[in-house]
Formats: sequence, C-alpha cells, structure tokens
Amino acid sequence: MAHTTIETLKTMLAHLDDAKKYQSLRDVLQSLPAPDLAPVFEDLSPEKRPVLFRLCPKDQAAALFAELTPETQQSLIEELSDKELGAVVAALCADDAADLVEEMPASVVRRILAQADAGTRRTINELLKYPQDSAGGVMTPEFMELRPGWTVRRAMAELRAHGFDKETINTCYVTGPDRTLLGEVTLRALVLEKDPGRPVQALMQEAPVRAATAADREEVSRLFEKYGLLAIPVVDAEDRLVGIVTVDDAMTILQDETAEDLAKMNAMAPSDKPYFRMSLWELYRSRAPWLLFLMLSATFSSLVIRGYEDALAAVTALTAYIPMLTDTGGNAGSQSTSTIIRGLAVGDITPRDWLRVLWRELRVALLCGGTLAVCNFGKMLLLDRMAAPVALVVSLTLVCTVLLSQLIGGALPVAARRLGVDPAVMASPVITTIVDTTTLLIYFNFARLVLHLA
Amino acid sequence: MAHTTIETLKTMLAHLDDAKKYQSLRDVLQSLPAPDLAPVFEDLSPEKRPVLFRLCPKDQAAALFAELTPETQQSLIEELSDKELGAVVAALCADDAADLVEEMPASVVRRILAQADAGTRRTINELLKYPQDSAGGVMTPEFMELRPGWTVRRAMAELRAHGFDKETINTCYVTGPDRTLLGEVTLRALVLEKDPGRPVQALMQEAPVRAATAADREEVSRLFEKYGLLAIPVVDAEDRLVGIVTVDDAMTILQDETAEDLAKMNAMAPSDKPYFRMSLWELYRSRAPWLLFLMLSATFSSLVIRGYEDALAAVTALTAYIPMLTDTGGNAGSQSTSTIIRGLAVGDITPRDWLRVLWRELRVALLCGGTLAVCNFGKMLLLDRMAAPVALVVSLTLVCTVLLSQLIGGALPVAARRLGVDPAVMASPVITTIVDTTTLLIYFNFARLVLHLA
Repeated sequence: MAHTTIETLKTMLAHLDDAKKYQSLRDVLQSLPAPDLAPVFEDLSPEKRPVLFRLCPKDQAAALFAELTPETQQSLIEELSDKELGAVVAALCADDAADLVEEMPASVVRRILAQADAGTRRTINELLKYPQDSAGGVMTPEFMELRPGWTVRRAMAELRAHGFDKETINTCYVTGPDRTLLGEVTLRALVLEKDPGRPVQALMQEAPVRAATAADREEVSRLFEKYGLLAIPVVDAEDRLVGIVTVDDAMTILQDETAEDLAKMNAMAPSDKPYFRMSLWELYRSRAPWLLFLMLSATFSSLVIRGYEDALAAVTALTAYIPMLTDTGGNAGSQSTSTIIRGLAVGDITPRDWLRVLWRELRVALLCGGTLAVCNFGKMLLLDRMAAPVALVVSLTLVCTVLLSQLIGGALPVAARRLGVDPAVMASPVITTIVDTTTLLIYFNFARLVLHLA
Repeated sequence: MAHTTIETLKTMLAHLDDAKKYQSLRDVLQSLPAPDLAPVFEDLSPEKRPVLFRLCPKDQAAALFAELTPETQQSLIEELSDKELGAVVAALCADDAADLVEEMPASVVRRILAQADAGTRRTINELLKYPQDSAGGVMTPEFMELRPGWTVRRAMAELRAHGFDKETINTCYVTGPDRTLLGEVTLRALVLEKDPGRPVQALMQEAPVRAATAADREEVSRLFEKYGLLAIPVVDAEDRLVGIVTVDDAMTILQDETAEDLAKMNAMAPSDKPYFRMSLWELYRSRAPWLLFLMLSATFSSLVIRGYEDALAAVTALTAYIPMLTDTGGNAGSQSTSTIIRGLAVGDITPRDWLRVLWRELRVALLCGGTLAVCNFGKMLLLDRMAAPVALVVSLTLVCTVLLSQLIGGALPVAARRLGVDPAVMASPVITTIVDTTTLLIYFNFARLVLHLA
C-alpha cells in the first residue's frame, strides 16, 4: 500500500515543474508516514526539496526533518527563511532539536538558536551538557509530571491541559518536592480507575527501573526488552527526575549498536548510514584500513613459515594442511569470541565471570578439538592415504589449535571490556590473525617432534 | 537497588527451611520484577520452587511463570495442583499461554487445557493455527476494539468496562462490520479530546502499518523501529482484525533474531538460552558439527596445494604467504557478506538489488585490492627482501582475491535469500572456505605464469 503511494509520489515529483498539481501532491504527501517520505526526499535534487518541504503540514514537516541525514538537513536549512526555520525548530521534539544542534556546523547552530524561543534554547543547552552516548544524551525532558496528592480527576484535568506537547503520556511520573522521583502511574491505571477521587499515590508504582544521566545508552536500552517497558525515567545524582527515554528511541539505539558491533566484528569501521546511502569512498574508507592492518599482521605467520622452511621441504605434505589448520583455528576462535561478545553486550556475562568463562571454554574446546582430531585422523589415513605419523601431527595440532583458539576467543573480549575497549573489536579477524601464528608454531613443533625433523 | 534485593532474597532462600520467615520473604518477592526473580527461581532446587511460587501474588506468579525456561515450567506444573495450574493459566496472557502449550509435552498440554476455561481454550487453539515465526504466531487477541460511531464519552466508558484484561489500551482499534480494521485511536487522543461528544471516527488515524497473519515475525518487528510504533494490528486475508503485536514482544523477537543471525554467522547452531544456562553438551552440539563440516570442506584447499607441490618446492618462499593471502580473502569476504546480510535483515537491501550490490562491491573491491597490492609490493621488496617477481605474484593474487571475495561475499547472501535459505549462513566461515581454494588456485597460476614454473 505504502509502496504504491511512494511510486505515485515519485511520478508526481518527476513532473513537478510541468504540471504543478500542488493540491494532489499535498494529498499524497499527507498519507505517507515520514519514514517512507524521507528516502524519496533525500533522492530529490536540492532545489526541489524546499518546494516539497513547504507543501507538508507543520507536524509532518517536523517528523520528516527529524528523519533526514545531517547533510540534507543542513542543505535544507540553508534554503529556509528564518521564520520557516523557527517553525521547524518549534515543532521538533526537544531531543531531536538537541541532536540537530549537535550535528550542525557553528554558523547553522547560531541561526537555529536565534530562531528558537527562550524555553527551547534553554532545553537544548541543558540536553547538550550530557555525552551523546549517555542516558542524559538520549532522554527527552518532555514528560508528564503528577503530584502524589492529586486526585485522579485532577490528574486527568492536568493531562488535558498540559499533555499535548509531551513525548508520551502513557506513563506519567509522580514527583515530590524538588522533582524527586517517587514513582510512575500509567495512563491506563488513571483511565481504568473507577473512583475519580482516589489519590494518584494509590495508583502509583515505585518505578524500580530508573537510569542515571551518566548511564550508558545501550545498557539503558537493554532494560526495555528485559522488563517490557515503554519509558524509563532518568534521574540525576539527587534522584531528581530530569528526563525520560522512550521505547522508540531505545529500539533505534539497539539497532545502531548492533550494526556497530557487527561492523567491528567483521573488521570494518562502523557507519550509521544504510548500505546504498554510503558513497564508494565511504565504503572504501570503512574497509581498507582494517584489511591493511590485518594483512600486515600476517607478517608473523609468514615469518614462522620461513623459519621452518627446512621442515616443510623435508615433508612437503605438511604444507597442504596449513589452510585447514588455520581456518579451523579461526572458526573455533570466532565461535567463542562471538558468543562472549554477545553475552557481554546483552548482559548475560559480566567481566567478573572471566574465570567461569575460561573454565567452560576449556572443556568445550577439549570436546570439540577431540572430535575434530579423531575424524581428521581417520580421514587422513583412509581418504588422503597419508602416513600415520603425519596424520598424528595434524590431529594433535587440531586439538591444541581449537583449545587455544577458544580460550583466546573467550578471554580477549572479557579482557577488552575490563580495559575499557569495545569487546567487538576482538572478533574473528583479529583472533584469526593471532591464532594463525600460534597454530603454525604448534604445527611445526609437533612435526619436528613426531617426524624427527632437524 | 534490585541487586541488593536479589542478594537478600538469595540469603532468605538459603535458610528457607530453618527460619520460615514467610511474611518477610513475601515482602521481598513483591518488590522484585519478574525478570529479576526468574534467574533466582531457576537456580533453586526443584522442591523449593513450588514453595516460593505459592508465596507470589497471583499476577506476579503469572509474570514469573512466563519468564521461566520450558524445562522449569514443566517441572513446576508437575508440582502444582489442578486448581493452582488453572489459576496460572487464567492469569497468563493469551499469547504466553499459547506459547506454553506449544512447548509442553502432550500429557502436560492435556492437563493445561483441562484446567483452562472454555474461552481461554478456544483462544489458545485459535493462536496455535499460525506458524510460530509468523505475525499470527506472536500476536495477542487481547486488544481494545472501538466502533467508529461511538462518542469519546462512550469509548471511555467501554474502556473502563473492558480495558482491564487487554494487553494494551494505549492504542485502540476501530473496526467496522465483520471486524474489518478501519483505523487506530490512541488513548492519548481520547484523553486529550476536549469534546466528549465527538465521534471516535474523527480522532481515528488510518493505520497505514498493518501486518498479515502470515507475515514474517522479524519483518513485522522491524516496522516498530522504522515507524516508532507501540503496537501493530494483524489482519487476515479479508482485512479483519485478528490480533495485535506489541512493542515489547517485537523487542524480544529482534533480540532473538539478532542472536540467531550472529550464531549462524559464526558457524554455530543458534540457541535461545543465555551462555551460562547452556549445558556443556549443548555448547558442544552447537559448535562441533559446523567445525567438522568446515574442516572437511578444507579438503579442497589441501588438494589444490598438493596439486602444485612442484611449484612450491621450486620457490619455497611462496608457502610463507599462503596464510596471509587466505586470511585477507576471508577478511575481505566477511566485510561484504556481513554488510549484505545485515542490509537484508534490516531491509536496506532487497534481493532485487543484486545487480546494484555486485556493481558497488566490484568497485570497492578494486579500490581495496589495489591499495593492499601496492602496500604489499613495497613491503615485500623493502622489508621481506623478496625478488620483484615473487612480490608481483603475491600482489596480483591479492587484487584478485579481494575482488573475488567481496563479489562472492556480496552475491551469496542475496542468492541464499532468493533461494529461501537464511542469508546468515553465508557468512565468514563458509565464505573463507570457498575463498581459500580459489585464492590458492589464482596464486599458483600466477606463480607459474610469472615465475615460469612447469
């Protein structure tokens, strides 16, 4: 349904200058949610964008604006009059306005703040004090506050008077003197209450889940899933309510964090742009440095092989199993490392568990390594027709490689977290490079030992 | 705060038989949210669990029950009387009850259905008709339905009368004859409306986002993030409203799907259990088969090396660069493949885009491969003191490997999606194995060509 509307819109936009059927265009615009409209808008030529933007109703214009990339936002702002810009800033949610100010260059920021009214300006400046990746940096101050002594009737009247510009009123917050957070009341509880004279206090729940302004935004977002919440109150050091984080923002944060982890785990610099919105140059810059770094790190494995050239020359068959051994090490390592990285991200594993993690990984690795060694030994004897001592060397190496890879794969993410480094960096590519060298060292030393090479 | 309470609870439970301070235990229990209580409960010995369970207030008992693993649910059900079981089933949400029936063995299911009242039984059977991974399989039929002609006053009265057992009333659904979905009305709009005589129709929005019962549950869950929704209506083929999916379930689904993708991308069988809840045997079973499969697939790379043993014997230095080349191929491939898998999962990329994907990957790969080749050529000449022809062979192979890896890495996930296979399987480990063999073939053929080997 939305798809057809988008196609219609695109056709209309292609003929914008010819037909100028503005009214029908306006109708199509209104029926499209901002997230569907944004990509069409981004693809427009810069001179058509202000025309389309002015055709949107005020609220939709603000929603559309919040969905745009910073580049498009900036080019659009440069086309808008001061008055139009003021209207956009007034219609934006406080947290979106603060994000905008954070992204724009100084000259644009000056124009934005000049057009904002005093209250908005104060709110924006307040929000900008918090780091972008903290609960304070993603919260909105537009929440509904109730007093514990109010009756349900009074609370509903206050909602009607002040609820319209709040980010959500589905959960309302009960505060004491100095805005100390006492608890939460859901709109549901207020509406379903049959006695309008009952005090808000009686419907209040204690809000066991609350976040400090400095709390990590990813950790706060995970609480939504765990407790099934729609909003989480954010309090300062004195337990005063300063804002709320809503579930829609939490979902976006989790999606961004997952994408970031996935990029790092696959040796790429993270980007918050969708694939087709990244330029070739951006894709190149996210990939090439890591490939280069890992390629140069492989120098160590080259050095090991060159150090054992005599052994390889004596038993040429050994070379044939190098890729299998290093790949198995890499695969085993990435199994552990991805399990631990995910466990740390979701909160199933804490850095204090490191000893338990290593103990489990050790036992699993012995089981896996043993299985592989037995199968490989049989396969090398029966299928590859190799001599038993060579098969023994490869199989023994397999056990040690899997053991070492899963231990390193289990330890490095936990160590990274303890050192304050993102565990996601300690994933497959880095592990593979580390494991390669050690696997080769083990391999050649077993070969020397078992095959009695010099 | 919750942490201290959990510790207190654990201490009390350890001395449960001695002190029997049931009242204070009850107080501690009531202050803990079910998601915090569940892990403590799971760790209890089976004979203590029913004691604790009976101490929980009814609603908390149901919430706790829904958080438990199927194993614990089953062992607990076996301890409960028929009457107690009936109370739990009655207090469970309809979708949780259906999930329970789906997980339990036949004998337990018979007991559950025997204790459920006729309405619950019908609802459960209705929900069980839909596949578990469809919108129908995750929806709840407990939504609030309004008529377009009702006044706001009437709607609020209906909410007060029937709203208490609905999964959410923050969004209400306006239906016509035969339950055809006409649109949505938020509770917020109803509460903020100043004219109680206004018809519901006037506050209604058209609900542009709706899901078919057969829609994939992951795709439906992604819509929440995109459009910032709290609930999505699920309709049958005749556009009749049959249920809703709520944002808390969507978050859980997305978390599960991400964990599943991550496991597959790292050559593991997915599990929905947290790391420390998996037994050693379960960890082993999730890892060993893939390691074994990939190890055996590496036979191809062994065969290639054995086929070119003469070339390797003639220029022994060639062996030293094998791990670097295969690792670079693996890394380059996993960059592309993880980017495309993520893009497909999030919806940034559709299978129809395959030609655009390949064209982008081709150009990025040439840029990356070129950079690596130039750096490697310099490094081999200056640092490794290799002859120029050998450096040329390795560098040419690098360009081809990166190109091939990123093309294969870009193509395979899209191809998998088109064939109905989960793209996440076509990730780093599988790509590495495929790329190894081709890299070695390219390498040795360049060596023959440039170094004039037989």
